[in-house]
Amino acid sequence: MLGGTSYRLINLKAWRNIRRFCSDPKKIPELTKNRYEVKRGQYAEICEQDLATFESIVGKNHLLVDSSEVEPYNIDFIRCVRGYSRVVLKPKNTQQVSELLKYCNTRKIAVCPQGGNTGLVGGSVPVFDEVILSTQSMNEIEMIDEISGVLVCQSGCILEQLEEKVHERGLCMPLDLGAKGSCHIGGNVSTNAGGLRLLRYGNLHGSVLGVEVVKADGTILDLMSNFKKDNTGYHLKHLFIGSEGTLGFITKVAIFCPASSKAVNVAFLGLENYENVMKTFLLAKQQLGEILSSCEMIDAQSLECSTKPFNHSSPIPEYPFYMLIETSGSRVEHDEEKLHDFLNNSMESGIVLDGTTTNESRKMRDIWQLRERIAPGILYDGFCFKYDVSVPLKHFYDIIPAMKERVGSLATKVCGYGHIGDSNLHLNVSCPEFTQEIYKLVEPFVYEFTSNLKGSISAEHGIGFLKPNYLKYSKSPEALDLMREMKTLLDPNGILNPYKVLPRNL
Amino acid sequence: MLGGTSYRLINLKAWRNIRRFCSDPKKIPELTKNRYEVKRGQYAEICEQDLATFESIVGKNHLLVDSSEVEPYNIDFIRCVRGYSRVVLKPKNTQQVSELLKYCNTRKIAVCPQGGNTGLVGGSVPVFDEVILSTQSMNEIEMIDEISGVLVCQSGCILEQLEEKVHERGLCMPLDLGAKGSCHIGGNVSTNAGGLRLLRYGNLHGSVLGVEVVKADGTILDLMSNFKKDNTGYHLKHLFIGSEGTLGFITKVAIFCPASSKAVNVAFLGLENYENVMKTFLLAKQQLGEILSSCEMIDAQSLECSTKPFNHSSPIPEYPFYMLIETSGSRVEHDEEKLHDFLNNSMESGIVLDGTTTNESRKMRDIWQLRERIAPGILYDGFCFKYDVSVPLKHFYDIIPAMKERVGSLATKVCGYGHIGDSNLHLNVSCPEFTQEIYKLVEPFVYEFTSNLKGSISAEHGIGFLKPNYLKYSKSPEALDLMREMKTLLDPNGILNPYKVLPRNL
Repeated sequence: MLGGTSYRLINLKAWRNIRRFCSDPKKIPELTKNRYEVKRGQYAEICEQDLATFESIVGKNHLLVDSSEVEPYNIDFIRCVRGYSRVVLKPKNTQQVSELLKYCNTRKIAVCPQGGNTGLVGGSVPVFDEVILSTQSMNEIEMIDEISGVLVCQSGCILEQLEEKVHERGLCMPLDLGAKGSCHIGGNVSTNAGGLRLLRYGNLHGSVLGVEVVKADGTILDLMSNFKKDNTGYHLKHLFIGSEGTLGFITKVAIFCPASSKAVNVAFLGLENYENVMKTFLLAKQQLGEILSSCEMIDAQSLECSTKPFNHSSPIPEYPFYMLIETSGSRVEHDEEKLHDFLNNSMESGIVLDGTTTNESRKMRDIWQLRERIAPGILYDGFCFKYDVSVPLKHFYDIIPAMKERVGSLATKVCGYGHIGDSNLHLNVSCPEFTQEIYKLVEPFVYEFTSNLKGSISAEHGIGFLKPNYLKYSKSPEALDLMREMKTLLDPNGILNPYKVLPRNL
Repeated sequence: MLGGTSYRLINLKAWRNIRRFCSDPKKIPELTKNRYEVKRGQYAEICEQDLATFESIVGKNHLLVDSSEVEPYNIDFIRCVRGYSRVVLKPKNTQQVSELLKYCNTRKIAVCPQGGNTGLVGGSVPVFDEVILSTQSMNEIEMIDEISGVLVCQSGCILEQLEEKVHERGLCMPLDLGAKGSCHIGGNVSTNAGGLRLLRYGNLHGSVLGVEVVKADGTILDLMSNFKKDNTGYHLKHLFIGSEGTLGFITKVAIFCPASSKAVNVAFLGLENYENVMKTFLLAKQQLGEILSSCEMIDAQSLECSTKPFNHSSPIPEYPFYMLIETSGSRVEHDEEKLHDFLNNSMESGIVLDGTTTNESRKMRDIWQLRERIAPGILYDGFCFKYDVSVPLKHFYDIIPAMKERVGSLATKVCGYGHIGDSNLHLNVSCPEFTQEIYKLVEPFVYEFTSNLKGSISAEHGIGFLKPNYLKYSKSPEALDLMREMKTLLDPNGILNPYKVLPRNL
């Protein structure tokens, strides 16, 4: 993919910025057990005999017990939660994972599965002293078949490295994330990661062909398949896609990789109102069709976040709304012609007021930065309430004026941006500092508003440790009951990633 | 979609032919209980009080008890299995389904869910006297949102009618089947139907956004979502996609519908050997990229089946292999240029020996008929063993020469064709009449061969009543155990579609 490298640079930079602005990287966050109301389960505490057994399974070099070495595994990426695990285990293969889990299950030792530890909802670090079971040493690629487009690899492979490897064979990964330089494919699958290519290639339930999973009791579940068509019984793999390590530990995946694109173009547009943003998305779907690969919306206040703090300028004058549209296709001149005609049509009809388009790597990067720097930029206001919701496109922007009216002058900015192509809005409410007054105006209003629109209170970030008690806004009591039953069936002792995903007050 | 209407005509015709050739439509098939070794479960027999209760729930007009009216619901589409149910229930809404199942569960009355009854593995008709719970009266479209591309409807909507409705709004259904004129969307989702558009739009696990399901005990499970991004807890809907009505009864679905294509082109190619077929598929993926919508392979003997019996001729001379390639895109001239260049490249490099291409509706239909008439045509040989497997592309064709050697002169034809773009092979072994001698040479060899290639013994047709005992060739014992546990969890009395999917010897 032409723009692959430049995107990666932007994303990683933006990612580091997010971390930097969220919390001082030198400061150790408060222990989760002290900050949050949560009670340790009746799990065994690790003793020397346990450590000896662990060592006998994984070997000395794959067991961390030195507290300074263990610490980074106890703290999440945005440094908002912290556990106090004593031990990190880094098995090399499925058999070792199986032996470890079998032992932990018998001893009732709680386990926290961890991939690249880039999650944003506190799902990948221990809450108390859970043993950390890392995929770090499981990073072998088993097969890349460029003809059928199938990649088979262990769950600890880093997304970016997989992208490079499949790219050499004319393929691309069906997902792309800001955290690609660190995140593990097993973590991506466990959290059903979304990202920038979802509009084009769909979500992981469509792309993942098979998984190998170890159950809490150590049973190895071979649910591998290399085929898009496989109707042999219940489609069990999906239970493990997006259940955030609470139902099983993914050791291997098979993923369908589409052919990589030879041509990439980016357009940046200015629009009068949200109504026209929606019309433009519809026109883009019709006229760009199969080459549309991203469709992002940015409102005026959001754009301010990515321009002012970074002395970055927009390539077009100020408008109430902006759109970033990317195309990826197999033929440069065809894609440019389609994009050119789409822009002509949208501007002639008046729904787009202004726009620029480019296929130059540097200019594309500059435009993508306008989108990517919003998240770190808004933190310059002091404090920011951030939400990640899916809502129907007709009401996609409704919450912004509603929230503005609600919080009034207490907020510095109330702005919205996001993947309009996937109905995924990022809502931000910034203020000089956190106060209970504004907090109570924002929550649970934002969840109630989303719920009334039958939206999703977590579009791509998941539930993890931070959101289980908000699940009720998106899931019916019957669905929550079935979730609990699944957990009991697959992990009767509750040793896998406890305190996560399932509502704690159930 | 330009070619929509013509495809439909071909498909329905081919479909009727399949039925005609499989068995005489006037002849009533033998009762399943007599033909197959299967024992009726300990379910209650329907009494007058039950009928009265059913009538009180659905009303007189939605209850069939007259044996001549009930009979068509007892016999499957290809007239190979027959149950002897006394009653067909046609609830209008989810609430009625819930009340019916709650009652049946309490009384331990077995239930056979039924959609359009077009399945090919005997999954949609009773085995004994199960009550037939039909989706026929649940055919309301709740919403079509052309902006986000979301369709929400009841499960009894007919696929073809949905295609027409979403087409009016510039969308298309993400699946297309030969049986589209009869099959219900709820049945499609329950069986994870594949079909002609899978190469382009992926399978239903990616396209289905949400489902509403009634559990065996009558509990209504609202797993609806209108969003591609929704990471709020376990992704439970997938349990009901492809479990063939054994875990719950789907009452409502939300489906993502892509924008419909403005341009369709079809190419028909002649090739020297399978190696070049594979190379051509790879080249098509690279050069046609985003517009490739079908890629089919046909060997010489398969083509004979669709030409000779129907006095139909191929547009190109005879070759050992043929490929049918279809493109669907948003711009006629771009698509034609891509296809033209792809053909030039493939012929210049010598991997394709001959070819023709067209965008004329009539000619496209003629070419598609060469593919669609293979299935009915081969039945002219007398009897045919038919298999539907997924196998790795490198070994896609290996089974044909292996089988030829094995059965020798006992077979009239051993030929292969299918969706090479999805690794899905249809293997056919024809002979003048069924004999135990050839049967024993063909089975279980075909399953063992597929299993050794780690293939799938049922690519798109499912398991139903006819294949549960072959599941072991594609599923590990641990996976089968978990399937059984899921069944027990969701349907402890086993009232939903008994004798189907799960191996009966477990």
